[in-house]
Parts: sequence; C-alpha cells; structure tokens
Amino acid sequence: MHDVIIIGGGPAGLTATVYAARKKLDTLVLTKEFGGQPMWTMEIENYMGYQFITGPELMEKFDEQARRHADNIKYEEVKKLIINDDGSFTVQSDQGEYTTKTVIIASGKRPRRLEVPGEVEFTGRGVSYCATCDGPLYSNKTVAVVGGGNSALQAALELSAVANKVYLVVRGGYSADPIIIDKLHQAKNVIELKGYISKAVRGEKYVEKLTVARKDRGEETDLDVQGVFVEIGLKPNSEFVEGIVALNNRREILVDGRCQTNIPGIFAAGDVTDGIDKQIVIAAGDGSKAALAVYEYLLHKK
Amino acid sequence: MHDVIIIGGGPAGLTATVYAARKKLDTLVLTKEFGGQPMWTMEIENYMGYQFITGPELMEKFDEQARRHADNIKYEEVKKLIINDDGSFTVQSDQGEYTTKTVIIASGKRPRRLEVPGEVEFTGRGVSYCATCDGPLYSNKTVAVVGGGNSALQAALELSAVANKVYLVVRGGYSADPIIIDKLHQAKNVIELKGYISKAVRGEKYVEKLTVARKDRGEETDLDVQGVFVEIGLKPNSEFVEGIVALNNRREILVDGRCQTNIPGIFAAGDVTDGIDKQIVIAAGDGSKAALAVYEYLLHKK
Repeated sequence: MHDVIIIGGGPAGLTATVYAARKKLDTLVLTKEFGGQPMWTMEIENYMGYQFITGPELMEKFDEQARRHADNIKYEEVKKLIINDDGSFTVQSDQGEYTTKTVIIASGKRPRRLEVPGEVEFTGRGVSYCATCDGPLYSNKTVAVVGGGNSALQAALELSAVANKVYLVVRGGYSADPIIIDKLHQAKNVIELKGYISKAVRGEKYVEKLTVARKDRGEETDLDVQGVFVEIGLKPNSEFVEGIVALNNRREILVDGRCQTNIPGIFAAGDVTDGIDKQIVIAAGDGSKAALAVYEYLLHKK
Repeated sequence: MHDVIIIGGGPAGLTATVYAARKKLDTLVLTKEFGGQPMWTMEIENYMGYQFITGPELMEKFDEQARRHADNIKYEEVKKLIINDDGSFTVQSDQGEYTTKTVIIASGKRPRRLEVPGEVEFTGRGVSYCATCDGPLYSNKTVAVVGGGNSALQAALELSAVANKVYLVVRGGYSADPIIIDKLHQAKNVIELKGYISKAVRGEKYVEKLTVARKDRGEETDLDVQGVFVEIGLKPNSEFVEGIVALNNRREILVDGRCQTNIPGIFAAGDVTDGIDKQIVIAAGDGSKAALAVYEYLLHKK
C-alpha cells in the first residue's frame, strides 16, 4: 500500500513527486511516457529561471530532480482507477496493479485530431502532431500547419526555419500571444490562409495534398504539401477516471484551489484539470500544491 | 494609464511581469526591495529545474528574465491603493503616484516579531530575522534560534555549520518537513529546547542573553548567546489594501483559483494571499495565473 500514486510524468507529476518524496511519503509514479507536453516544444522563454530552454532539456532537469528524491518511477499506462471499500484506491496499469492511500492525477493532455479522411491513414507518413519532433524531416519541403492558437503559430514559425514554404490554415482568427503573432508576420515563407477549413489529407504512400475549403464558400483547393501538422488543441487524458471523478464538459477533472477532486483522497494537477491557463510553471505550482494537500490529508487521516 | 501595475518583485511578482509583458501589456512593477523572501534562503532544492540553487541566485535569474521582457521596474514602496470612480486605480508609493487599469498585488510577507523586551532595541545588534543574511557573522559564537517550523529548523541547521553552539527554542513541537527534522537530529551542536518560551533579549551594547522559561513552569533561564534568530512565521504585507480588498483573519488577501480578489481589476498572487502553501514554485505559478487573468479581464473590458 503506497501513500500516494502519481499518474503522469510531466511538469505537474514530477513536481508533485519531488514534494511528496521530500515529505517522506511512499511514492509511486506511473507515467505512459517521459516528460509530457513540454517534450514537443523547442523554445521555452517563460519558465521562470531559464530565459531560454528547450522542452526536452527542461524535462530532463525535472526528471533528474524527481529521481534524486524518488526512485520509484515506472513507465506504465494507467488504464483504470478503482475506489476500494476501505477508502483506498487500486490503480491498474497495462503492466500491473497497485494499491494506494491517495492518488494525484497529472496525466495531462494529448493532441486533438482533425477528424478528416486520410488523417489516421497518413499519421506518421506526413501527418504529425508535433512540429518539434518531426519538423526537421521537412527540410526544403512544403508543409501545412492547421490551427490558430499559440502552438499552431509556434509550429509554423519553427517549420518556417526548416521548410521552403509553410501554409498556415486557420478556421477563424488567431487566438495567440501578440508577441508570437508579431514573429509570425516577420517570417517570409509563411502563407496565412485565414477562414479555411481542412477537408482531407491525400496522397499515395505519403502525404501529397491537403484539401482545404473557404469557410464561407463551397469550392475546395488542394495544397501541395509533404507534411500536415495538426495543432488544433488538446484533449485531457481522463478516460480512466470517467464515472469515478467529476469532469467538466471538456472532460477535464474539476479541482478546487488545493487540487482536490470531488473524491476525498483523489487529487489532480496540471493540464488534465479544469484550470484555465495551461503553462509549465502553473502545472509545476499546482503539482506542488497537490502533493502538499496529500500530505495534509494523510496527516489528518491517521 | 498603465494596463497593469504589479506590486512586488519576488517570485509571484516577477513571474507576473514576464507573462504580462509577453502579452504586450503596459506593465509597471513597483517593489520595495529586490527578490522577496527567497533572498533569505541559501538552499533551495525544490524549485523545479534546479536541483540546488541559492535564493539570491534564483532571484537574479527571475529578475533578468523579467527585465528581458519589461524595463519598467521601480524600487518604490507602495503606501496606498485607491479605487477611482471610473473603475481604474491609483497606486501611491513613497516616491510617486501612478494610475492603472488593473493591479496585481504580490507584495509577499515579512517576518513576525517575538514581541519581547529588548527585541526592537537589539535588532541589528544580535537580533536577526534572517539566518542566511546574518549567519556568517556568528562564526564560533553561540546563538539561539526561536521557532519550530521549516524556516526555524533550516536556520538552526545553517547556523550549526557556522556557530559553536545553537539553541533551538520551540514553544511546542516541530511543524517541519520530516526530511529537515532528520537533518537537524544529525547536527551535533544543536541543543533542542522544546516547550520553552522566549521572555526577553538582554545585553549591554550587543545581545548577551536570551531569557527563556519552560512553558509549564515559571522559572526563567538565561541562555548566553551573541545572536538571536527569530523564525516564528511571517506577516502579509497587506496594510496598504486594508479596507480596500477582502482579507482573512491573518490579513492575507482572499483570492479565487484565478487570483481574483473581491474587487474586479485587483488580482493577487503569492504569499500575500490566503493560499495555504507558501512555495516559490507555487508563487511563480500563481503569478502566471494572475497575469493571464489580467489579460483576459482587459480583453473583455475593451
């Protein structure tokens, strides 16, 4: 029986790990993958303490710091969370089953799909959800980025340094930081297609075309591209707690100011929650809050 | 008329500064002093991204990062916050008067006093509120630390490496992290006086004695010490908003999960708020939330 199982190895989960372990709680971390969303980002200028750092570098540091305090970090995907009769919890992963007095859910988010024909078929053969990971493959090629938020514009900027030409396909207007929009306007090889909707991804073996249409008219146009980067937002990794803890209509976990869910003993932090702003420093701060709240909860339970 | 005035230059204030400036808000920072509470700490192991860093080093990095985005940081002490008839705010400092559409209060906390005879008289002549700052002066001397929380124990540990002997005077038991209590028990020259109350600080020109008494009995004992380090907690720097925004009974500013106070347009973050856990990474996270909430507020006001 662990004191706490932390689900997720991104900024929130690893910060919770440091705080839980420093409180000498018996801590187990289960995470599907290393580092979470910052792994997809090559330019971080707003994590305090580093004027400039890449996501993978920062998460390497988070991970080292967590392991300095806790050695029980396993790469397993959590499939189910069960509330036991005695108020403890059972966590089932793809590799095992564990019991614990408390849980911190910090399982983050994953990219939302376009849901157009060809998308699934060409994933890994031209369709990508991570400009940072796959961008370098498109040197001197033409690519499309779909989306109008910070991550879409940042992806377009990153790709503009590598690719010959970048189409930026946006349904409406931008919902991005002014500083990033400014940078985008300085990039010479980005073609902005505002008011366009993606209709299909086509090709033989690899992506050859992205079919788009103007929002207000019917006719479709084919963009000749070798890559399609989908940056239209994120979905919370909360499926394994559906029906167990309260979610909002975006399937984010509802938490209060101390990261408590509606179930005593289950806490949540970071992008999987209904917190409005999704930032590394916020996820880290809330990871710390969650671990300290777990410590308090266990103190009062004894 | 500024978009936002940020009051305070600690972790919350400087993080808010980075986020506000990156949103291109016209930002003015007013802070009494550089860096806030981390300046008193020589060992930080739980700010994510740095396995080990001193407070002054970390705040130097925060400050550089803030100045990279914002150049309007003034060392002025805020004395009064006035709500104007048009919903804007006037901030009066010891050096000037400024108007702004929104305010983020991140003015932090300051040490609480013992309130015993001799304390004020000997401040700076043996009585200190900062082991990190003044500890090195007590090489091979005997000192007392008063308090039983994390910062008291950490002060005792820091001083035990410098001083000959350290008395740790605690009214009740410890309310500190187990990891720190463990470290304390390994220090050979710390004498723990549990259940003792401080009565007076005495001396000629400099501190010579700390008078203590057992909580349950009357008789007083004089400890021969050259230094007295007071580590009995902190008071919020919220006097300038008393009667303006809602405070709790500890005079901390009441905020919701988005750092909003009861007055639209006034936000607060960090240790001056009623947030339960006081940590650098939490203050930074909440500073980011406050700035993003200000941005939203201004967007909807337009």
